[in-house]
Formats: sequence, structure tokens, C-alpha cells
Amino acid sequence: MSLDQQVKDAHAAWLTIRDWESSEIVRLLESIADALDEAKDQLVPVAKEETNLPEARLNGEVGRTTGQFRLMAQAVQDRTYLDITIDHADPTLTPPRPDLRLKTTSLGVVGVFGASNFPFAFGVAGGDTASALAAGCAVVIKVNPGHPRVSQMVGQIMIAAALKAGAPVGLISLIEDFDAGLALVEHPLTAAIAFTGSTHGGRALFDAANRREIPIPFYGELGGLNPIFVTRSAATEKAKETAEGFLASITMGAGQFCTKPGFLIVDSGNQINQELSALVASAPAQKLLNANIVKQHDRNRDEISRVPGMTLLAQNAEGGDTAVSIYTISGKDFLAAGESARREVFGPTAVVVDCADSDELLKVAQSFSGTLTSGIHATENDSMDLSPLISRLEQISGRIVWNQWPTGLAVTWAMQHGGPYPASTNSLFTSVGAKSILRFRRPITYQNFPQRYLSPVLRDGAAEIKDARVNGK
Amino acid sequence: MSLDQQVKDAHAAWLTIRDWESSEIVRLLESIADALDEAKDQLVPVAKEETNLPEARLNGEVGRTTGQFRLMAQAVQDRTYLDITIDHADPTLTPPRPDLRLKTTSLGVVGVFGASNFPFAFGVAGGDTASALAAGCAVVIKVNPGHPRVSQMVGQIMIAAALKAGAPVGLISLIEDFDAGLALVEHPLTAAIAFTGSTHGGRALFDAANRREIPIPFYGELGGLNPIFVTRSAATEKAKETAEGFLASITMGAGQFCTKPGFLIVDSGNQINQELSALVASAPAQKLLNANIVKQHDRNRDEISRVPGMTLLAQNAEGGDTAVSIYTISGKDFLAAGESARREVFGPTAVVVDCADSDELLKVAQSFSGTLTSGIHATENDSMDLSPLISRLEQISGRIVWNQWPTGLAVTWAMQHGGPYPASTNSLFTSVGAKSILRFRRPITYQNFPQRYLSPVLRDGAAEIKDARVNGK
Repeated sequence: MSLDQQVKDAHAAWLTIRDWESSEIVRLLESIADALDEAKDQLVPVAKEETNLPEARLNGEVGRTTGQFRLMAQAVQDRTYLDITIDHADPTLTPPRPDLRLKTTSLGVVGVFGASNFPFAFGVAGGDTASALAAGCAVVIKVNPGHPRVSQMVGQIMIAAALKAGAPVGLISLIEDFDAGLALVEHPLTAAIAFTGSTHGGRALFDAANRREIPIPFYGELGGLNPIFVTRSAATEKAKETAEGFLASITMGAGQFCTKPGFLIVDSGNQINQELSALVASAPAQKLLNANIVKQHDRNRDEISRVPGMTLLAQNAEGGDTAVSIYTISGKDFLAAGESARREVFGPTAVVVDCADSDELLKVAQSFSGTLTSGIHATENDSMDLSPLISRLEQISGRIVWNQWPTGLAVTWAMQHGGPYPASTNSLFTSVGAKSILRFRRPITYQNFPQRYLSPVLRDGAAEIKDARVNGK
Repeated sequence: MSLDQQVKDAHAAWLTIRDWESSEIVRLLESIADALDEAKDQLVPVAKEETNLPEARLNGEVGRTTGQFRLMAQAVQDRTYLDITIDHADPTLTPPRPDLRLKTTSLGVVGVFGASNFPFAFGVAGGDTASALAAGCAVVIKVNPGHPRVSQMVGQIMIAAALKAGAPVGLISLIEDFDAGLALVEHPLTAAIAFTGSTHGGRALFDAANRREIPIPFYGELGGLNPIFVTRSAATEKAKETAEGFLASITMGAGQFCTKPGFLIVDSGNQINQELSALVASAPAQKLLNANIVKQHDRNRDEISRVPGMTLLAQNAEGGDTAVSIYTISGKDFLAAGESARREVFGPTAVVVDCADSDELLKVAQSFSGTLTSGIHATENDSMDLSPLISRLEQISGRIVWNQWPTGLAVTWAMQHGGPYPASTNSLFTSVGAKSILRFRRPITYQNFPQRYLSPVLRDGAAEIKDARVNGK
């Protein structure tokens, strides 16, 4: 089928489901979750073969993926995403106020571009797909070339589960080739794009979405440097614990997480560097997703190793796979190197920036720009006032983590996954958690409408919905 | 002062006020509202001279403008715009959930481009400025060339009132020339743009905002055709009332409202057309804002008059000013003419599309695209099921009006002013009403933070804030 026909079918399917009751959307989401859970044993071996990721991780990821569908189902039942707001008419005001009732409505066909590093949770059935369906949108999904077979399997299972739940044909469909992806962004009936991947690829599609005669929202999650700052107290009182936590975080998923803490900025890093040297020596080598990712990782590692003042602190044996590499650089050299030192290396490579004092640490913080996450490790004994550091991290981050690590993203109501560019192309929204639905809904106001033509949720007496705001009576 | 220095000063001012208590923001907004109210008698004559708008309208508009500041102050007190969301830690979950607390934070320096047609309410001290300040942002405001003198006066009054309320120098400043406007959009420290004006000018700046190395949100409100649909029952049972309402709406502000209903689509328009012919003959001629607007109006009116099948239904005497002109065209000819018939004529010119039946009316509805508003006039006696029409209007509109007219926009909580492109460049947000603040805030999640470094609104025990969501305990 041509891409054009796929998008037209998706649009027709959307026209059907945009009038669905929330209970019907819930059934759709739960049907998909159940079907994916049931198929786990079929899916995981294929994903393992395509991505080199270990079985335990992939099993957990399927659970995370279906958990996302179930959280979306909860959010749909909860209905806060409708943003119900009612101003009753008030003729006594100057000027008199008409009856105004606002709720959100679904955008239409959403194009989804899945990521390479999470074949399930950010793949064909990832959070973008789950939240777009929860919002009442149709989806056309571009399969990531890193794991086409498991993506097609997941797609077929989702489509069958959707049909079983009463969804119209065409509500969910997949595309594979690069040109079709661009055509999807440019198609007149595509209403929004959700993308998880590289800054380079994301920016190209973002530009295409904005170049359209009718531009559309582009929600790109492009990654981050995720700098973590360690106070002098933490660097001495809990050097070992911090080094262990850092190493575990940068090797989670072989360092192929968009929340990987690529930079550890330490006020007096001597002890932590010693701990890391010892720990890294015995770390296992890492198997990356595929040969292309290995090539990119090695190129970026080479680039970062050539920054003036950068030295290799610790590296384990490669054993045919990719080594864990930790570089270190003084705060002074890091600042002098400028942009070239702030490079994302996707994979198990990270940098310790060893600062002379807390002033230099703050200067390094000021040198970072938009990032998904950042963090602070501190103790009760810090003499440094951390407010200026927190203030700077607030300006650049979507999430700030205290004495924990940014990898292992919770899928909840209060999660923000997205930050100032280049972390994401729209920092006002999250791509993970219940609020991700909001990306695919826009408000409509109904003025002076008769009860019979209002959506049931806006009618008089329907205002028991949580968080509905009603002004006047 | 150079534009560069102005933006730098605004950024420094933002760094100060981003830590302000909500009570300080409220004081700022109310101080500006009070100062503008006090200066009304100085401001209105200058605005009248620059815009040709009548005194009564301008007096009302000052009240609307200060009312907007006061609504924003209420919204800041109300604090729903903080979107407080708390997930307490839960070690019993799989995976264990960390403590996550989300609130929104201000974006930074907002560039504001005011409109020509409302020197106060959408001008230098318009809703964009009020909502950006309410959000805790600094503003650099491009003065509209249509009313530079009153804009400078309003700017000076605002700046003085802000300083009196304790605001830092540089929080509010004005620029005048076109090149500075473009430089403002391109400046690295500018965080967002709010624009009200033409599609042509808005699109150019939208493109510039997206072309940046670090793209920024561009909230453009670009206008609309605002089609209003009249059922056969309404067209016969209340032809006179509908004609009167339509004429009053298209001549409000001499037709220079972005919510002007440019197209009245009638199922059997004979009677309404007769009523309009009689009414228009005695309508007063209209004084447009300035010579440039007159030129554009006349050119667009010429274009629309040349659409095949378009005929002049009624026109009053110009008397040196601009005539009220109503054209009419059959539904069939309108559909055949395509895009050329769907042209916005800013000024007192409008079109009646006379449809043969309700099917044709629905086809005409399907031919319209993104618009700020749309509407329906109907009676209790309609045999036609209006659901398909409403469904179509939902797909293209930000607001749908029933048996009223779209001009005279209420500034409230439930107002949506903005719709699918080209009505606005981001249909997920409104530029009018309490929710317009949301354009200038983005979420941040604090993970596992100690109480002392959390914002007071996120600390334990602070959750009495309206609409705060708290999961777990």
C-alpha cells in the first residue's frame, strides 16, 4: 500500500474514533497491553538477536511497555487530559459573559518515529504510540532500521489487538523506508510527529515539519549530556558509592540510554577517579546495538579523546566488544575547550570533569545547555550553597535528580522527559508518563451551545470530573 | 541602547524575577493595571488620532486591557498554571518509584509583537505581555508601526509601574524598527515569541524562530475566515435578526477584528440577502486604521469580487471612507472557485455563500481549513442533523459559537483564542484568557530532592493548591 493511502486510511480511522467514549479507548489500550504481554516469549528472542540486549532487560522492557499502555488507560479514565473548563454565562458582568465550555480534542494522524535503543518501550509500541492512541489519534509508525523484525511482530500484534477491541482498520500501521518517513512528515493529513532519536535525524524532520505549507507540531526527544555534579563533601565522604553508582548508570543498556550521565563534574575528583580506575578495570565489556552504533560510538570517543587536556582515566578489556572508557579533564581545560568537549557519546564512554573548587564547578554548570536531565550528589555536610547550581540546572533541564542517577526513568504522572533544545524540540511537553497525552490534544471552546450538541462531559451536571474548573453557575 | 543589550538586560531581569513569590508577580500585574487605568484619559486621544477608532471603543479597550492584567493576577494567585504533580516514593512498586515532584518554570525572555487593530488589548500592554509577565518572564516588545506614539506612552507607563512594584530594570522594554524585530527573534537569549498579526508577517517570523540553531516556541495568532453557518430554519424564521447580527459583527471595529465572520454560509440565503441589502444601504461608512490597511483592504476586496460567480449584494455610500460591502456567491460557484474564494478581507467586507441545500452547506464547511472561530445559527425546528457540521467545525476551529457572533471575545478561563494553522501557529495554546500563561512555562521534575531545596509549593504539606495532583503518600 502506498504511504499516501496509509495516511488517508489512518485519517478515516481517526474520524471514527474521535467520537469514541473514553471506555472504548481504554479497551483499545488494554487489549494491546494484554496482547503484548502474552506474546512476550515470542518477541524477546527476536529483539535479543536484533539488538544484542540481554534477555532479562528485554523481558523487563516488555513489562515497561505494557505498563505504559496501562498507565495511559488510567489517564484516559481519569480524564484530566480533557482540561474541562466551564464559564457559565453571567449577564451581570461588563461586558456580559457568554456561556463558554472548553475541552480538548484529538489532533488527527500522528506520525511516530521509534528509537533504536529500546525496541519495545520507545519502539513501535512505545510511549509515543501509546499516548497518541490514548489521545484519540491514529498512528502511522516508522520502524527503526535497527530492529525491523521485532518491530513488525509488535506492529502485527498491536494491529490485531486493536481490531479485536473494535478499532477501525487503518488506525495503526507501519512504514519501513526512509523516504516514506519523510513523506509521512510532509503528508497534508499528518497532524503531528513524535520522534525519539538523534539530534541530526530529529532536526532534519523537525525542519521538514516546519517547512510545510501547514506546519505541524514536532515532538522530538533528541537526547542529552545529562551532567551530574558532585560536591566536595560527596566526593570525599562517599567517593566509592558515587563511583559505583556512576559506573552502573553509564553502563546500563551498554550506555545507550538518552538519560546516560555523560559527564560527572566533581569538586576535587581525585578520590572518585581512583575509585573509578579500580572499578572499571573489572567491568565487563559491552555489546552495542549494532555495527553502525559501534562505528558512531568509536568516532565520538575518538573526538572526545582529542580534546586538549583530556586523558583516559580507565578502560576495561574490550574482548571483541566495546570497552567501558572513562576520560578525565580538569575544569579549566574543559572550559577552555568550549563546545568540542560537550559531546554526546552514545555508548559506555563518559567523562569526569575534575574541578579545583566549587566556583569552577559552577562555571562548568553554566557552560552546559539544554539537557534531558541533570543531577547533584551532595551530603549533609556541604558548606557550599547549592542554590546557584540548582538555579542553573533548572534553566537547562527537564528533570533534576538528587543523590540518585538519571537512568531508569519512572513512567508516572510527575515525570518530565524532555528539556530545552537539543534535549527536545518542545520543552513544554514530556514524551514519557501520563502527561505525554497532552501533546496530541488541543483545546476547543463551545460558546452558548445547546446541551444536546455538547459532548456529554461538558453538559450541565457532568462536572464531577476530577480537576474540572467551573466558574459561575 | 542596542537590541543585543536590551535582550541581555531582559535576561538579567528574568534571572531575578524567576525566584519571585507569586505575591510579587501579582503586585507587578496590578501595579501596571492601575497605572494604565489612571492614564486612560491621556492615552485614548492619542490612540484615536493614530487609529481612527472611536473614543467609546478605545475607552472600553483600556478597561479590557487592564482587566486582562487583573485576570492574570488572579490566575497567578490561583496557581493552577504551576501544574503541581507529586508522586511520592513507593518502594513496593516494580520497579520501585522514586519521589518525583513536578512544577512548571518560566521560559525566559519573551519577544512580543503587538497588533495594529487593538492599540491597547493586543498592543504593547496586550494579553501577550500580560501573560508573559504573569508567567514570570521578561518581555521585549516590538511596537506596531500603526500606533507608535500611544505604544510608547503605554510602554513608559508600564515600565514605571513595574519599577514602582519592585521589578528589576530591563524587565520590560520596547523596540521599534523592523530589523530589530527580526534580530529579537534570532537573539540567543530570546526564549519564546508571541505574535498577533498577518499570516504573511507571522509566517516569516515563525520561519526565523524555527531556523535558529536553538529553535524557540513561536505563538502566532494570524487571523481567520471565521465561517458562520445558517440552517434553513434560521434563514427563514429569523432572517432579519441574523442579518442584523451579521452586519453588526462584520462592522465591529470597522471589520478589523481577527474574529470577524468573513463568510456567512446559508442554506437558502434569499431572505437573509434581502434583509442585508436593506440594512447595508443605511449603514455608516467605515474609517479604517490607516492608509496602508485601506490599500490592503481594497486590494483584497477587488480580488474577491473577481471570483467567478461572485456578485456585489449590497454596499453603502463610501463618503470618503471605506464602504461596507457584502458579496454573494452560490455554494456551487464557491466550491468551484477553490482557494481563491476563501480569502481574508481585513475590513468591512464579507461574503454570503448561498447554498441550495444542507448537503451543499456541509460541502462548503468541508472546504474551509484552520480558523480561529466558526459558528452555527439554528432554531429548534431544524430537520437537519447538525452533528456532521459540528464535527467538521471541531476539526478546523479553536472556538465554535452557537446562535451568537464570534466578535467580542470574552477574556476568561474557558476561552480558546487560536485554532489550526493558519489561524495560529500552535493550536495547542490560546493567546487570550487565563490559560495563555501556559505558553511561557515548561515543566521540571525534581527527583528525590531534599525539602530545603524544593520550591515551597512542592514541599510536603504544601499541597492545598487547587488542582494539585498527589499520588501515594
